[in-house]
Amino acid sequence: MTERSHPAVTVDGLVLVDRKLVAIRRRNDPFRGMPALPGGFVELGETTPEAVVREVREETGLETRVVRLVGVFSDPGRDPRGHTVTIAYALEAIGGRLHAGSDASEIVLVDPDEPPKMAFDHNDIVRRWRGP
Amino acid sequence: MTERSHPAVTVDGLVLVDRKLVAIRRRNDPFRGMPALPGGFVELGETTPEAVVREVREETGLETRVVRLVGVFSDPGRDPRGHTVTIAYALEAIGGRLHAGSDASEIVLVDPDEPPKMAFDHNDIVRRWRGP
Repeated sequence: MTERSHPAVTVDGLVLVDRKLVAIRRRNDPFRGMPALPGGFVELGETTPEAVVREVREETGLETRVVRLVGVFSDPGRDPRGHTVTIAYALEAIGGRLHAGSDASEIVLVDPDEPPKMAFDHNDIVRRWRGP
Repeated sequence: MTERSHPAVTVDGLVLVDRKLVAIRRRNDPFRGMPALPGGFVELGETTPEAVVREVREETGLETRVVRLVGVFSDPGRDPRGHTVTIAYALEAIGGRLHAGSDASEIVLVDPDEPPKMAFDHNDIVRRWRGP
């Protein structure tokens, strides 16, 4: 991540397959080895829904569509590499086949009712997605 | 706005005073002379709710608190100067006194039921805030 004067925008996706949340086990630091929601930086020229569909495809192999906005997570300490604002979306799988992409060592299916400790603030995101 | 490889994050605030939405008449291009919701860039180290409260204070003089997230607006063409992703919040006024800040030539109170043509995609944001 290069020096920035403003936070960067990222997206994270919550997709259920067989009633489990699709996560990836992180290959790299920070949080190496921990499950994380699929996601990444928004590129110039794409909307945030387009970005999350692309990131989920790249990291998990799934084709999805956005169902709803879950929330915005902007705590400056949420990523130790620098301040990012992430926009979390719930998606539904509409095709593709689960396989780990380049940023992931493997796919992890997470029980949404009893999730393991996840990378970044992803447990908070899962909690918000589940609702009160 | 400097060259960027990723979109920047901004915030916009919807605050009612006397049942009217608080807007500012833009002093500068783009959209010079048109009403716009108060808002601006998120700074490093602040959350998006903190950013919108700060921008509303700087541009309108009002002290506010966030009531709810209205939506995320990320169309690449929404700002002709470059791609920004804006996060819109509904706020309630809790103090201060309305006066135009440095980015605004004057405060405009907008009828939320019949808003004038506004800058950027702010009519879309007002529509989303009003709901279906």
